[in-house]
Amino acid sequence: MAIITLTTDFGIRDPFSGVMKGVIYSICPKAEIVDLTHEVPPQDIYYANFIIRTCYRYFPKGTIHVCVVDPGVGSTRRPILIQTSNYIFIGPDNGVFTTIIQTENIICAIELTNNKFFLPEVSQTFHGRDIFAPVAAHLAKGTTPKAFGNKLKKEELNTLLIKQLVKKEGSFIGYIQFIDHFGNLITNVPNNVVPSKIIGKIGKHSFEGLVSSFSEAKSNQLTAIKGSSGYIELFIYKGSAAKFASANIGEELEVIKT
Amino acid sequence: MAIITLTTDFGIRDPFSGVMKGVIYSICPKAEIVDLTHEVPPQDIYYANFIIRTCYRYFPKGTIHVCVVDPGVGSTRRPILIQTSNYIFIGPDNGVFTTIIQTENIICAIELTNNKFFLPEVSQTFHGRDIFAPVAAHLAKGTTPKAFGNKLKKEELNTLLIKQLVKKEGSFIGYIQFIDHFGNLITNVPNNVVPSKIIGKIGKHSFEGLVSSFSEAKSNQLTAIKGSSGYIELFIYKGSAAKFASANIGEELEVIKT
Amino acid sequence: MAIITLTTDFGIRDPFSGVMKGVIYSICPKAEIVDLTHEVPPQDIYYANFIIRTCYRYFPKGTIHVCVVDPGVGSTRRPILIQTSNYIFIGPDNGVFTTIIQTENIICAIELTNNKFFLPEVSQTFHGRDIFAPVAAHLAKGTTPKAFGNKLKKEELNTLLIKQLVKKEGSFIGYIQFIDHFGNLITNVPNNVVPSKIIGKIGKHSFEGLVSSFSEAKSNQLTAIKGSSGYIELFIYKGSAAKFASANIGEELEVIKT
Repeated sequence: MAIITLTTDFGIRDPFSGVMKGVIYSICPKAEIVDLTHEVPPQDIYYANFIIRTCYRYFPKGTIHVCVVDPGVGSTRRPILIQTSNYIFIGPDNGVFTTIIQTENIICAIELTNNKFFLPEVSQTFHGRDIFAPVAAHLAKGTTPKAFGNKLKKEELNTLLIKQLVKKEGSFIGYIQFIDHFGNLITNVPNNVVPSKIIGKIGKHSFEGLVSSFSEAKSNQLTAIKGSSGYIELFIYKGSAAKFASANIGEELEVIKT
Repeated sequence: MAIITLTTDFGIRDPFSGVMKGVIYSICPKAEIVDLTHEVPPQDIYYANFIIRTCYRYFPKGTIHVCVVDPGVGSTRRPILIQTSNYIFIGPDNGVFTTIIQTENIICAIELTNNKFFLPEVSQTFHGRDIFAPVAAHLAKGTTPKAFGNKLKKEELNTLLIKQLVKKEGSFIGYIQFIDHFGNLITNVPNNVVPSKIIGKIGKHSFEGLVSSFSEAKSNQLTAIKGSSGYIELFIYKGSAAKFASANIGEELEVIKT
Repeated sequence: MAIITLTTDFGIRDPFSGVMKGVIYSICPKAEIVDLTHEVPPQDIYYANFIIRTCYRYFPKGTIHVCVVDPGVGSTRRPILIQTSNYIFIGPDNGVFTTIIQTENIICAIELTNNKFFLPEVSQTFHGRDIFAPVAAHLAKGTTPKAFGNKLKKEELNTLLIKQLVKKEGSFIGYIQFIDHFGNLITNVPNNVVPSKIIGKIGKHSFEGLVSSFSEAKSNQLTAIKGSSGYIELFIYKGSAAKFASANIGEELEVIKT
C-alpha cells in the first residue's frame, strides 16, 4: 500500500480534493489517501511549506506528499517531483518544498513533462487534478521517478527566503511562523535552544515560561511551552493567544534567556 | 473494491457523515469512501446537482455516488437509485441528479422500497444514515439494483429547471452557476463555444479574456479563462472575483464575442 | 480490518488529524480511519461526550474510538483505554467517555503507561500524535489491552455531571444538549417519553409537535420532531431554529405533554 497525502488551498467546501481522489483511485485503486489540510490560505506558499515540513516525517517510508498551492498554475512554473531518502514530494516548483530541499537528502528531482502520465486533457487551472494526482497515482503504482521527465539539479529548484532566528547577546529575535486553530502562536524558536526558563515580549505583551503543560499556566497569562512541532509556542490556557496578543503570522517577538 | 462518494449538506462540524461511514463499513468493510463535499449550502439542490455533475466522471467505473441534500426527508419524496453505463447514483428524487438524468445513458432507475436493505429503525430525519448509506453499502457488496425496489421510468424522475445560456446576435447571456473557495466565478458559458478573445460585463464590471493562465491577468482586472469544469470562469489574480464584483450565484452576465 | 474513528477539537485547517493518521498507518497500514469530527469546540468535553455517545454504535464491532479533546494534556490527567463488549475507547480520562462509562458493559479500563507503545518522543502538548494514535494503531494490530498499562476500576474513571431531564406534573424541564449545522436544537427529551402531541416553550418562543417530517411544519413555526439521535429536536423548516429562538447549548425548555 502506498500512502498519498494532500496539502492544498482548495478549501473543504469545494469538491476539488475529492475529484483528485477520484483520479488517484482510477489509476491506483490501492492507494491510501490522507488529507493534511485543504485550508492553506489561498496561494500562501510559506504556509504550505510550514505544513509539509512539520508533518511529512510522521508518515511511513514511501509516502508520497502532494502539495497543490499553486498560484502560477498554467504558467511557466514547473511541475516537479522530489525524491528524498524516505519520501516523494509532488507539486509546483514555487517554494512549497523549501525546507525539504534545504534539509533532506535529495536523491533526485524531476520536472514533470511526460504527459503520458497526465489526464488526457490538461486544463489551465487545475493541475492538481490533471497532473499532480495522476502522477502521484502512477508513482504509487510503482512507476519510477525518472519516467516522468528530465532531471533537475538541486540548485535549479526554487526556494523561499525563510526568515531566520536572530541571536543577540542574551536574547533572540524570532517571529510567529504559524497560528493554530486554538490560537496558539508557534514561534520559530527551536525548543532545544532555550533553557528551562525564559521571559519575552511580543508587541506590548510579555510572556514567560517554560511550563510543562498547558494547565500549569496562570489564567490570562501569555505563557511559553515547548511545542509539538519542535518550536516554542505561546498560549493562553483555555483561550486564544492570537486574540489575546492580537498577533498575526510574521509578527516579531523577543525571547530573553534567563 | 467499490468506491462510494458522499455529497451532503451536513457540514463537517457535525458527525453525520462519519456515522454514514460507520454504517457503510458495518455492511461492506472493503468499501472505499470519498467525501466530495459536506458543505453544500443547507437544502440547496441546485448546488448539489452542480457538484455531482462536474465531479462524477473523474471516478472509476462502478463508483457509487451518494447525495444527501434532502429537505423533504421523511415526507413522500422518493429515495431513488439511478444506474448509468458507468456509475450508480443514490439519493432523494428531488432533482439533485438532474444533469445525470438529462445527459447520461440511464440503464435503470429504482425507487428504494425494500426495507430489508435499510437500517432496522428508519428515523424521520436522517435517511442518509438509515437508507442511503446501507443501500450504497449493499450495492458495493454486489447486490443487484433491482433488489432494492420497483423500477421507475425516466419520465417519472424529478428534475430541476436549469437556466440555459441565451444566445443573442453576437453575444450570450449567461449566469454564474458556482462560486469556488477562491472567489472564482464559474459561468454557464461552455469553454468550447467562445473564441479565443471575449469581452463581457457582469453588473457594472467589465471583463476580458481569454488568458491562458491566472498569472497572465492584469492586477485587479476581472479576467476570463477556460475553467477546469468545462465553463468559462471569471477571476481576479490572487484575489476574489466574487468580492470584487459583489457577485452571487445566479447573477447574469453578458459575453460579447470578439 | 480494524476501524479507528477520530473525534478531536483540532479543527480541519490544521494538519494535526492528518499527522495522527500518518502515525497510525506507520504502525498499522491496514487500519481504516474515519473522522467523526475535528470541530468539537476547543476543550469542550461535554460536546465530545455527546458526539461519542450518539455515534459509536453505528460502527462495526471492534471499532476503536479515539477522542482527543484534552485541555489537561501533559498534566497529571490519565490517558486511558476502555474496552466494552463491542468497542474500545481511547482518550484522556477527563469525562469525554462519561456516557460510555455509565451505560456500557465495561470489560476493562487501562491507564496507558507502557511507553513502549508511544512515539519515542512524547511532547507535552500533542498526545493525540504521541500517545493516543500509536496506542490505537497497536490495538488495531492486535495488541491486547492489558499490555498498555495497569487496570483501573470503573469507579476510578472520571465522569461529567450530565444535567438530567426533570419530570414535573404534566411537564418536563429539559435543555438543549446539541445544536447541529442546520440550527436544529437537539433536546435531552428522549423520543420515547413523549406522546404523539406536545407543546412547549423555550425562552419566549413556543413550539408544538410532533410532526412526522420536517416538511410538515408550518413556515416559521418552531416545531418538534423525533430526532435521529434519540431525542426530540426543535426545528424551523428550511431555516435555523437556533437563530430563530436565539438558543444556545444548555438552554432550558419546557415540554408540556398534551
